[in-house]
Formats: sequence, C-alpha cells, structure tokens
Amino acid sequence: MGLVVQKYGGSSVADAASIQRVARRIVATHRAGHGVAVVVSAMGDTTDDLLDLAEQVSPHPPGRELDMLLTAGERISMALVAMAINDLGEEARSYTGSQAGLITDSSHGAARIIDVTPGRIQEALEADAIPIVAGFQGVAQDTKDITTLGRGGSDTTAVALAAALGADVCEIYTDVDGVLSADPRVVPKARQLTVVTYEEMLELAAAGAKVLHLRCVEYARRFGLPIHVRSSFSDREGTFVLSEAAIAARIASGEGDIMEQPIISGTAADLNDAKVTVVGVPDRPGEAAAIFGALADARINIDMIVQNVSVASTGRTDVTFTCPQGSVANATGALEAVRDQIGFEELITDEGIAKVSLVGAGMRSHPGVSATFFRSLADAGINVEMISTSEIRISIVTRAELATTAVQALHTAFGLDADGEAVVYGGTGR
Amino acid sequence: MGLVVQKYGGSSVADAASIQRVARRIVATHRAGHGVAVVVSAMGDTTDDLLDLAEQVSPHPPGRELDMLLTAGERISMALVAMAINDLGEEARSYTGSQAGLITDSSHGAARIIDVTPGRIQEALEADAIPIVAGFQGVAQDTKDITTLGRGGSDTTAVALAAALGADVCEIYTDVDGVLSADPRVVPKARQLTVVTYEEMLELAAAGAKVLHLRCVEYARRFGLPIHVRSSFSDREGTFVLSEAAIAARIASGEGDIMEQPIISGTAADLNDAKVTVVGVPDRPGEAAAIFGALADARINIDMIVQNVSVASTGRTDVTFTCPQGSVANATGALEAVRDQIGFEELITDEGIAKVSLVGAGMRSHPGVSATFFRSLADAGINVEMISTSEIRISIVTRAELATTAVQALHTAFGLDADGEAVVYGGTGR
Repeated sequence: MGLVVQKYGGSSVADAASIQRVARRIVATHRAGHGVAVVVSAMGDTTDDLLDLAEQVSPHPPGRELDMLLTAGERISMALVAMAINDLGEEARSYTGSQAGLITDSSHGAARIIDVTPGRIQEALEADAIPIVAGFQGVAQDTKDITTLGRGGSDTTAVALAAALGADVCEIYTDVDGVLSADPRVVPKARQLTVVTYEEMLELAAAGAKVLHLRCVEYARRFGLPIHVRSSFSDREGTFVLSEAAIAARIASGEGDIMEQPIISGTAADLNDAKVTVVGVPDRPGEAAAIFGALADARINIDMIVQNVSVASTGRTDVTFTCPQGSVANATGALEAVRDQIGFEELITDEGIAKVSLVGAGMRSHPGVSATFFRSLADAGINVEMISTSEIRISIVTRAELATTAVQALHTAFGLDADGEAVVYGGTGR
Repeated sequence: MGLVVQKYGGSSVADAASIQRVARRIVATHRAGHGVAVVVSAMGDTTDDLLDLAEQVSPHPPGRELDMLLTAGERISMALVAMAINDLGEEARSYTGSQAGLITDSSHGAARIIDVTPGRIQEALEADAIPIVAGFQGVAQDTKDITTLGRGGSDTTAVALAAALGADVCEIYTDVDGVLSADPRVVPKARQLTVVTYEEMLELAAAGAKVLHLRCVEYARRFGLPIHVRSSFSDREGTFVLSEAAIAARIASGEGDIMEQPIISGTAADLNDAKVTVVGVPDRPGEAAAIFGALADARINIDMIVQNVSVASTGRTDVTFTCPQGSVANATGALEAVRDQIGFEELITDEGIAKVSLVGAGMRSHPGVSATFFRSLADAGINVEMISTSEIRISIVTRAELATTAVQALHTAFGLDADGEAVVYGGTGR
C-alpha cells in the first residue's frame, strides 16, 4: 500500500498492442492496492517523425514552436494509455505537463524543472483515479509557453513528479531487465545489478550507459527517491538505484536478497566524444585559462583534459581535451577566434576515439582496482591515450575500434561475467 | 489597415508545401498593413488517423481522452505554420485553444463556446506578431479539461475569435472560390455568389451545402461579423456572408461590384437523411406529441414532418419524418419503446432519399418562385414525396438517385448557370 510512479518509454507504447500491455500492468499495480501515477513518452518514432516534418517546413524552427510541435507526441500516447486503462474498468485521466504542474524555465528544447505543483494529479489520486502524465514537457514559469526538457526528459519528469508527490518509488520501465554491468550488445554476459548507488549510476550515465539520464539520477539523489529500473516486458525485479545509506539499511535488514554491495558495478564505452589537441601552446601562466575560457564561453562541455610536459627547448606544450563530436566545429571555431591571443600552432581533431570506463563505489576501499584495470587492458593489447579518474571511476581514451575488446577484457577481469546471456526485449537494446 | 482573422482548413495545410503556401499568404496580408490572427485545422487526414488509433486501443474511449488525443492534430499544424511564417521573417506564435481563451462547456466531442478571453492573442497582436490558434478545441470552464467543438469546429473557432477580437472580417479559406450556387460536382456550371445573407447561408448549410458550418454562421450573425469565404489556392475575391443591412449598404455605396441581391442564391441536395414512417397512428389528440416527445427525449434531430389525412374508416393516420441516417436506429428504438402507449402499427424506414432545396432571400418578394420550382421538377420527371418550406427556402424529398437531376433542373430553371465551369482546387470538391 503506497504510491508508485511508473514511467514507460517510447518502445513500451510503440503501438496499440503495446499500449494495452502497459495498461494491464498499470491496472495490476493499482489492483494490488497501490496508488499509481504514470508518465509516458511519445509512441515509438513519433518524435523523430515530427522533427522530420519540422525540417521539411523550416531549416531553423524557433524553439518555442518546435516544443509546441514535439509535445503533440506525448499528448497522443497519454490519451491512448488512458483509454486502454478505462477499457479495463479503471478510471484514468491524462494530463499535459502544464496541467500536471511541471513548471520549467524557458530554455526551449532543454528546459529545467524549477517547480512541480501537481494539484490536479493529487486530486486524481485522491479520487482513486490513475493520472497519466505527459513526459518530457512542461510550461515556462515566466512566458507560460510550452517547453520540453530535451531527449530522455521523460525520466526526469517521472522522478520530479514522484518526488513532488512523495511517492515510495519511481519505476522506470525499459526494454532490458534493469541496469546491467555492461551494454549487452557489447558484452552478451552482462550481469544485471540488484542495486546501484546514485553516484555509481551518475558515473555510469556519464560514461556512456544509456539506461538512465544524468539529470533524472541527479534529481532522485537530491530527494533521496528510490528508482527501480525494470523491464516492461517481464515481471522480474530490476535494479534499484538508491543512496549508500539505503543500500546499507537493506543489507542489514536482509531485504531484497542483497548480500553485499559489489566492488565494481560496471563497465561502459562512449563512442560519441572527440579528441581535440591544441598544439604548440606557449608554456606560460594563463594559457590554459584562455583556452578553456574560450570553450566555456562557447558552451562546449569538456570531459577529459591532458596537458603534456613542456618541451624545454621550445617553451611550448600541447593541451588535449575531449568533447562531444557534435561540438567539435564550435570548439575549433572558438579556439581559432583566440588563436592570435593564445599563440598556439595548430589544432588537431580526432573523432576516432572511445572512452572506456570502469565504475564502482567499492574502488574507494579496494586499492588494487587500478592495477587490475591497467594490467587487463595491457594484456588485451589496448593502447591508452588519455586517463581520467574520479573517486569511483577510472576512464581511458583509446581507439574507437578497440572499445569492444577493452570493455570485454575489463568485464571479465573484474569477475562481472554472468552465467547466462542478458535478455534484450524487442531486440533494440534500448 | 484593420484586423483580419484567417482560417485554413485541413486541405490547405495538408503537407509541408501547402503549409509554406499558406504562410506566404498570411505574411502577404500582414505586410499589406493588416493585423492578422490565424486559425488552423489539423493537417489533411490527421484527425481520421488519430480516430483509427483510438479505435485500435479501445472500442468506446472516454470523451475526455478522445478530445485530448484529437487536439494533438491542430497542435502539430499550428506549430508548423508558425515555423513557416518565422522562416519568412515575420514573428508568429502558436496557441492552443486553451491558451487562446476558447472557453467551452464540458460536452466532450461537441462542446459549445461559452466565452472567449483572448488576452494572449491580443498581446501578440499588439507586439505585431501573428498568432496562430488551434481550431476545433477549447478548455472546459468547470473541469479545466481539454474539449473539442465537433467536426467543422475550426470555422466556429475562427468566427468566435474574430468576434472577440473585434476583427473587421473573418476569412474562411477553402478549396473552392467561395459559396457556389450548387455543389460543382453536381452542377459543373455552378455560379460563385458575390454576397449571401446570414439567413441564406444558414438555410444552404441546413440544406446540405458543406462550405460553412451552421454554428459558425449563427455565431457570425449574432455578432454581425462579416465572413469572407475564399480559396487558399487563388487570389480571387470569394463570397461575403453579411447581414441584409450590410448588403444593402454595399449596394448603395457601389462597393464590391454588387448590383442587386439575386432572387435565388442556390440549390443543394442532402443525401444524409432518412425517412421514417409511423404507420397506423390512432387519429386522436396527443399522438403527435407522444411521438415527437419520445424522439426529443432520445435527442433525435427531426427535419421535415408530414402527417397524412386520416382515413375515416379506420380512424388511423400515418406520420412521416426525416432525420439523419445515423439517428435512425436510435429513433426507431425510442419509438418501439412507446409503441404500446401510442398504439401505432409499424415503422417503415427508408434511407434511399434525398432532400433537394432552393434557397433565396428574394423569394419573399417574388411570388412566382414556388410555381417555377414545382413546374421544373415535374418537367424533369421528379416525384415529390415530402415538402417543407421556410420564408426563404423550399425543400422536397425525392429518391436519392434523382437528386442530381433535380438540382440541375432547378439550377437551370432559375437562371443560375454560369458561363464557365466552377474551379475545384485540389480536385476534392472540399
């Protein structure tokens, strides 16, 4: 007896049959005695189809109008899910993001949630109805215009709504059984994790794991809201994303069959970054600040940074950083604009790289992790071009074509291989 | 220099190219110095496609959810039209019915507008932007739920918005050049009318002419708002729908090349009605009241009624009425339920009928119209089964297969045939 927020992604509501299946699951949860609020994404490829339409009409549509257009997608799926539930004899009512009280700033296409005032959702729950809320969208506090939260924003909607409603858990339904120790398309023996901390999940998301979006995990961590990532295609329990304290409490109480938190949660590869090297930077104070100041002004997200040891004879050094491939043109443009001021010699860009990461909260207290990490990569013949670490993550950059070998080597070296193969429902891997 | 509300139907915004064409027209009007507010329908077959989806999910979807679903259609078209206008260098902003202040009752699927509070539209106009408003939809005053006005509701949205904004004219764009003296698929030499009164337009709409919906004309008449029905495929002036006084003033001023209001505006056939005969009704007071009371309780719209002269030997008579074919099952059900109380013998239904009408404000002052009407039908071999008249209309019921012959005969007899053939753009006739 509690309140559950369930989020269903586009592949879970891709057609009429899928929508009816989702409706049966929602009704089953409700009939088991839970209050249920649901967040849905647009059906299957709807968002891409709408983007295609926009492109046909205008090469550079205004963000306000693009958001108005794209929000039609969830409007369709949420109404259909509500219909299917009503057809099963329970009362469901659909609500737009605006009606559900998802208040955002006015950054069209990438709006941030600044408040959630779910009065109508609470009224529906009090009337024992099942509210179905459009994911991915909100209304701007100042302009009252419709906004979208950006790709993957439905996860964030679900977590924000769950936090505002004081839900017991936010269930994120996807087409895999939970959070896995690696991408099952890369590592068929990827292991499903029973629990993972918010911090590990954030590192995994940043490292390229696509199962949950960074903002959604950040939001859940801020409110201490449990997330349950599970499959909409099976009834198996998935992966709980929790605070360390909550995991410790579960272990102590023997709840959920958790024996001990594993040292390593998973490995991941990210092939979407590029490497940019600024060659021949004069080795004097303030040069790095000038470089990264120019990149920050151009709103480039920098991930890893390496500065070579200065060559004494020339008094020059090289600075290398990684950023999303889509930002390379902006980044080099921003740097060329300050080339005279900085005095560097040339820019070399390289999109053929992969970032390979190992994530685990246990590495804080287990000092041998780095040694095993680099030894297993060396044994697999992986050349390491850049290194970066956090308290619970080690990442390296290598050639893109070596990513699969590297991830598989790490997965095996850290004893993560499962006995059987991971199930990917629907065959899309996401 | 004035304020124009333009309404574009689904065929005018059916694809990207059409949307760009419409945008050019809107921008041209704006650059000619007019304030412009636009109302759009959903693209082409979108509404039918959404209805199909709903049917796949649920056989009897709740009206609230069906309205939520269908309103996605205008959301898509209005955002795309706004994008196309912005692409031409003018500022356009799209608004849902709710954002535009279209306040309705809560009759989902057939909501009536009870107030229009277009504050955001006025703000946009004051900022010299072009507001693009979703037709067909509103928000219920009491429940705050999204409603739709029913098929053709976009015309009503446009007229209601134009009245609330105090616009000089509401332009209804369609795929014919204006209001014609007959359906051009039936009468190729149909003549375009320069002006027509609200009353004639109401009679023509009720008689089966599909160019404007009854509720929209009623709304315009109540506010004395001029409607200009014209083609989105050409720049020709179309048909003005005006009050008799406004037409008289135009004639007096020599404006718009109006010489004299014609005696007859047009002819129309309606093939959507059915004839129901209640056979052997006891000829005593109150029987008709019992029949039509039962039909009214079942919300059946009755059009024509005929009662035969009673047969003295039996003391019984027959009562015949027409109603929409879609209401026949409900009508006969309602009558069967009171059969014992009324004591009629049987019900005969006949869906093979056509209602053929002649409409013209001039028939009030030209007494020969009825004679010419019936003589020309007789000469064409048309058998008349029922007759009904209003001050400015004569209608008869005949066999469905005779409808075309009847309309053509009347069109010629009253001198309505044009020199050339009417243009139907896009080839759909609507």
